[in-house]
Amino acid sequence: MAVTRQVTYSEISPSEFFYRNRDLAGFSNPARALYTSVRELVENSLDACEQFSILPDVSCKIEAGPEDNKAGDQLAYTITIKDNGPGIEPKHVPNAFGRVFYGSKYKLKQSRGMFGMGGTMAILYAQITTNKPVQIASCFDGKTLHIFDMLIDITENKPIILRHETKQSEGTTGTSVRLTLMGDYLRSAQKIADYFKQTAVVTPYANITLIEPDGKETKYERATEITPPPPQETDPHPHGIDVEALRRMIKATNEQTLLKFMTKNFHRVGEKTGEKFLSFAGFGRNANPKSLSNEDVVKFVNALHQFEEFLPPDGSCLSPLGEEIMSAGIMKELQPEFVSMSIRPPSAYSGFPFIVEVGIAYGGKLLQPGMRLMRFANRIPLLYDEANDVAFKIINEEIDWKRYRIPQDAPIAIITHVCSTKVPYKTVGKEYLADRPELEKELKNATRDILRKLSTFLSRKGSMEFQKKRLNIYGKYLPLIAKFATSLSGQKKLPEYRKLLKREEVVRIEEGEEQPSEAAVDVEVETAKDSMSSKVNEKEDAQQRLEEFSKGS
Amino acid sequence: MAVTRQVTYSEISPSEFFYRNRDLAGFSNPARALYTSVRELVENSLDACEQFSILPDVSCKIEAGPEDNKAGDQLAYTITIKDNGPGIEPKHVPNAFGRVFYGSKYKLKQSRGMFGMGGTMAILYAQITTNKPVQIASCFDGKTLHIFDMLIDITENKPIILRHETKQSEGTTGTSVRLTLMGDYLRSAQKIADYFKQTAVVTPYANITLIEPDGKETKYERATEITPPPPQETDPHPHGIDVEALRRMIKATNEQTLLKFMTKNFHRVGEKTGEKFLSFAGFGRNANPKSLSNEDVVKFVNALHQFEEFLPPDGSCLSPLGEEIMSAGIMKELQPEFVSMSIRPPSAYSGFPFIVEVGIAYGGKLLQPGMRLMRFANRIPLLYDEANDVAFKIINEEIDWKRYRIPQDAPIAIITHVCSTKVPYKTVGKEYLADRPELEKELKNATRDILRKLSTFLSRKGSMEFQKKRLNIYGKYLPLIAKFATSLSGQKKLPEYRKLLKREEVVRIEEGEEQPSEAAVDVEVETAKDSMSSKVNEKEDAQQRLEEFSKGS
Repeated sequence: MAVTRQVTYSEISPSEFFYRNRDLAGFSNPARALYTSVRELVENSLDACEQFSILPDVSCKIEAGPEDNKAGDQLAYTITIKDNGPGIEPKHVPNAFGRVFYGSKYKLKQSRGMFGMGGTMAILYAQITTNKPVQIASCFDGKTLHIFDMLIDITENKPIILRHETKQSEGTTGTSVRLTLMGDYLRSAQKIADYFKQTAVVTPYANITLIEPDGKETKYERATEITPPPPQETDPHPHGIDVEALRRMIKATNEQTLLKFMTKNFHRVGEKTGEKFLSFAGFGRNANPKSLSNEDVVKFVNALHQFEEFLPPDGSCLSPLGEEIMSAGIMKELQPEFVSMSIRPPSAYSGFPFIVEVGIAYGGKLLQPGMRLMRFANRIPLLYDEANDVAFKIINEEIDWKRYRIPQDAPIAIITHVCSTKVPYKTVGKEYLADRPELEKELKNATRDILRKLSTFLSRKGSMEFQKKRLNIYGKYLPLIAKFATSLSGQKKLPEYRKLLKREEVVRIEEGEEQPSEAAVDVEVETAKDSMSSKVNEKEDAQQRLEEFSKGS
Repeated sequence: MAVTRQVTYSEISPSEFFYRNRDLAGFSNPARALYTSVRELVENSLDACEQFSILPDVSCKIEAGPEDNKAGDQLAYTITIKDNGPGIEPKHVPNAFGRVFYGSKYKLKQSRGMFGMGGTMAILYAQITTNKPVQIASCFDGKTLHIFDMLIDITENKPIILRHETKQSEGTTGTSVRLTLMGDYLRSAQKIADYFKQTAVVTPYANITLIEPDGKETKYERATEITPPPPQETDPHPHGIDVEALRRMIKATNEQTLLKFMTKNFHRVGEKTGEKFLSFAGFGRNANPKSLSNEDVVKFVNALHQFEEFLPPDGSCLSPLGEEIMSAGIMKELQPEFVSMSIRPPSAYSGFPFIVEVGIAYGGKLLQPGMRLMRFANRIPLLYDEANDVAFKIINEEIDWKRYRIPQDAPIAIITHVCSTKVPYKTVGKEYLADRPELEKELKNATRDILRKLSTFLSRKGSMEFQKKRLNIYGKYLPLIAKFATSLSGQKKLPEYRKLLKREEVVRIEEGEEQPSEAAVDVEVETAKDSMSSKVNEKEDAQQRLEEFSKGS
């Protein structure tokens, strides 16, 4: 007879889970925790503003202190993030900040926030390292400022309100969050600075201010008043539907027929597509959705995945950067010699639409030799764990660089931006994207496209330089040969070798004139190349001409 | 006056969160989902057995079907995992399998499971792809088998029991889980096979059977009856305590003095260390723990982190593989020419003890040229996302391979095992470990150690081969030179050059005898090397001897 063996079971709250496993959310050490806290709060602010097309004014102040908190490399830092967003309804403030899995981001809509827990995690981390409450001040109606001092009951996953006061506001809406956490600023300062710099590149319509612990203030001024269109919520695409999703839609619908159910609830399904699908799947157009059995639901979902005539998700609900913003940002930040962009049409994975935008910058004074990758997703700069990202994989493993004859140490920056209603992050910390095949394909195509463009630029530049060299030699020796030939043939008048060259410029070079400036050279050599027949470039042809010239003159 | 702008907030359940973000738990596509489901259930079985030192008998059967389920590359597969573990108390079965964040793994204890949600996620994934209930049959008391058919209410995060029946059991305890999910077996078959193979390497005390959809049965037979000691639950180490943890400990304690509180609740804190710490931190040994203010708690925690005289966590609660199991596994699986192991003493990160074990295998017939990395954590083979793992980083970026003069294409396998009460996984999918500095250090030291050993082996092997070559030449020409010198000097009797060689073996080689077998060669050349003075190896010495020989004879 077997012995019974006791095992204890327990249930933990979502707060508790992420408290225990905070590495998962990007809070793996004091440096990273400080960085992650800052960015999660800044992203909440930017999302809030953009949702209502408010031109964002966001400031982030990081102060050392209070002085008494110190442990090893860690020091207490107080972070204050303030925005001019729409504010938060007072009744939602405690839960929005004090409860994991409670938020406004659980929608099919492009936003920086994806898991609806970044702000709460920052507050939780602050609490478990300094025991200090977070202070949230928000004005929602433009009249009253609500101030909350709060802690989180981690075991119960709920806010503990220590203080709730109201004040008259200054007439504007907005939210500020102030928290104190143990962090390692020395080891995160660079990442934080990079984060703000890169955020400014992709958010040129925002005023962003960073005040560092030493008092240094960096302002990224608004460069345009045009905000991108606010991202729209969208219906799910049929290819992304699973059994659970369909069951919920059926439960929620009031439609009486399957056809109407489809056209009302699915992304880009009209009457025609709906009818085609239903006949493909073997369901009547007038059947009541609520009459579907469990087996029917599975059959319906499998058919949704197999039917190939659904329109692909459109990108109208997305808000990509666009060529203008992206190249402006790149030019401003990297000042390259060459910049090019590839913006892919909308695509989709598991029914989620996404758009890939890839830019390339080459040369200039700021870029160092070698390839630098800058990654963005839904306008968030991704700074950690580069080697894990799908873009890194594509660029380093999937692209046959040899084909593009780009020198290994060429000074290049590749900038990738993926926007989607659901960015396929591999961790809650939002640092890198999963290698979904659809995403790989778009990234690969865009990267190949920009590399082709760079390759053309470089080979043109290279062949121009090569031809310039040849022309130099040509221009140098031709007059001598002409003189020699003239003298050999006993004539006195030099032949019109200048016509042969047809090149005022070469003559100029020959005569020791100064070379034109670098930028101009390209244009002039361009002309040189155009005017010389391609035959001239061939060794034997040149030889032949020289012979003819000698004979003929 | 600003306009109010409505934002809707909602709360989602933990099931809902992971349903929406199943990528986070390793369910990112049909191939990976199938693989992850299998391993999560197998790992639950092994954990359950080992907890009570039961010699595990685990079988996994993967069947295609039911036939009617098919969508694109996906097909329905039915997985049945069966073990002879302790069984699960019937009252816990529904929640243990049907509720996220409910489990037996929320303890400071080494186990394969870490997040307490793998089994539930597999069931959830099965449900949302095939709508079929999971069937769990478990016998806990050796008498009655409880059979449950269940679904998960994802919105509410709770089990829906469709059927609960009891049967008389066959007198043994154990659990079986049977679920049907849409998967892509073609694309996961190799990983699943690798998973079982590698699991067998580190679990030689288990019988493991894999039955694939085509009926192929692979049995990994038990090779030893010795189970590793079951991992022990442990108190938290002072360095890993945060404010929240301390607050909970204070709330739970019945101790009246801080000193007793410390010695009872902290890992390896005795009276002496406790007293030293309390005086360092500025607290009285007899103060009541419950009298600590909020500020005191923070001060106490910061002091815990700063005090350097705490003993490091011991590894007694851990269950490493050990040299014997590890090298047996390596020899069996890889059949290398050379194997070596480095087992580090216990270390700790954030108060969690861990042990690093690294093995190296070189040569033999199975290893391909180049370096192969095999990673394990708490006896789990980690097969995905290798490039993200701390071990990959150490081996490829932090180790100066040149120092060890190991050829780039040498056939090498490096096997790393990290065991800990909390493995620092970077994702819930448990595929790779975070680069915690403490872990990096131990991995680096262990890797250097094994590389040194391999380097010694190779240089010895290399110099042996070099000497063997020299001896061959020596043995070949010396008789000729002897003859020549003898003839030159007009003498008839050959000098005793054999004495000079002192090498029966060399003579054998000279006389065209067969070379001894490879393994033997090493030993014999070893002798050769020992008996020849090192001077003989020097070119000029050899030259000099030859001259002396000619003169003297």
